[in-house]
Amino acid sequence: MRILGIDPGLQTTGFGVIEADGPRLAYVASGTIKTSAVDTGDLPARLKILFDGIREVTARYQPQCAAVEIVFVNVNPQSTLLLGQARGAAITALVSADLLVSEYTALQMKKAIVGHGHAKKEQIQAMVQRLLNLPGLPGKDAADALGIAIMHAHARVSFEAMSRSTTLQRRQHAQFKGGRTY
Amino acid sequence: MRILGIDPGLQTTGFGVIEADGPRLAYVASGTIKTSAVDTGDLPARLKILFDGIREVTARYQPQCAAVEIVFVNVNPQSTLLLGQARGAAITALVSADLLVSEYTALQMKKAIVGHGHAKKEQIQAMVQRLLNLPGLPGKDAADALGIAIMHAHARVSFEAMSRSTTLQRRQHAQFKGGRTY
Repeated sequence: MRILGIDPGLQTTGFGVIEADGPRLAYVASGTIKTSAVDTGDLPARLKILFDGIREVTARYQPQCAAVEIVFVNVNPQSTLLLGQARGAAITALVSADLLVSEYTALQMKKAIVGHGHAKKEQIQAMVQRLLNLPGLPGKDAADALGIAIMHAHARVSFEAMSRSTTLQRRQHAQFKGGRTY
Repeated sequence: MRILGIDPGLQTTGFGVIEADGPRLAYVASGTIKTSAVDTGDLPARLKILFDGIREVTARYQPQCAAVEIVFVNVNPQSTLLLGQARGAAITALVSADLLVSEYTALQMKKAIVGHGHAKKEQIQAMVQRLLNLPGLPGKDAADALGIAIMHAHARVSFEAMSRSTTLQRRQHAQFKGGRTY
């Protein structure tokens, strides 16, 4: 399963692609999409760069699913609105490429990668480097995006294990109840 | 010039298409895109409905440019974030169809359509009906979207008039200055 992780932002959006084979993970690609080439006041042009950049990534690396970091409200409502628009453009790029999109908070990602929710950026970078056996430290935005992809790989493994155990319980239950299924 | 106006929203997005020939306006189409078919918690699916809906409108009515209402921060920051994402998806659909997107506030639109910024929804509906010579009252979301399209048509006429007068002034100025052009 090839997973594309996205850390959305209006100035810089991080992306990370990994290959997950059960619990085994392999790095495919990562990087950032920057909107600094156009006037910061031209929101439509910035969103176009973001959309086109993500579509380019999906076309090049052919992920089978995507995961996007859930962003939070900022102290500045205007920044919240801008970030929301960037995230909307990023998700739209993914769904328009027919990818199923999962969403995770930074807290969930940090817990999954570093083990606790208070992890600093540097700790995420170091753990992502270790988990994916990278020759060097990934950039901060790319590390977050790779972290989100790894988070999704973990969630899928847990979900599959849970589905198996639930199926087993239901079967046993069904036998006990005399064959009733729900 | 065929103009597509958009009043973005996560639940309901209004659209309105008009044909503007200088100050003469003609109605082409209007309607709404609703995301109620999917689970309200599934944001990616809702944004996909919005994106696909706007792309369908652009493909069917072939506008040459678009105008989108500028949304404002809500008292509820979470609502601001959701609305931002919807607006991001809407703008992305327009720019991905290679349309130039202009942005106007509801205040600018109300002033242009009704004459003052405190206009109620019903007044916008009634003025849009009159300006476009419609047989019936347009729906509220569609009326807002048509209002944004009419606002853009007015802005273009004003801008062209301004450009002409500026060009004229520059020419006179250039002659006065002995042929220097800027």
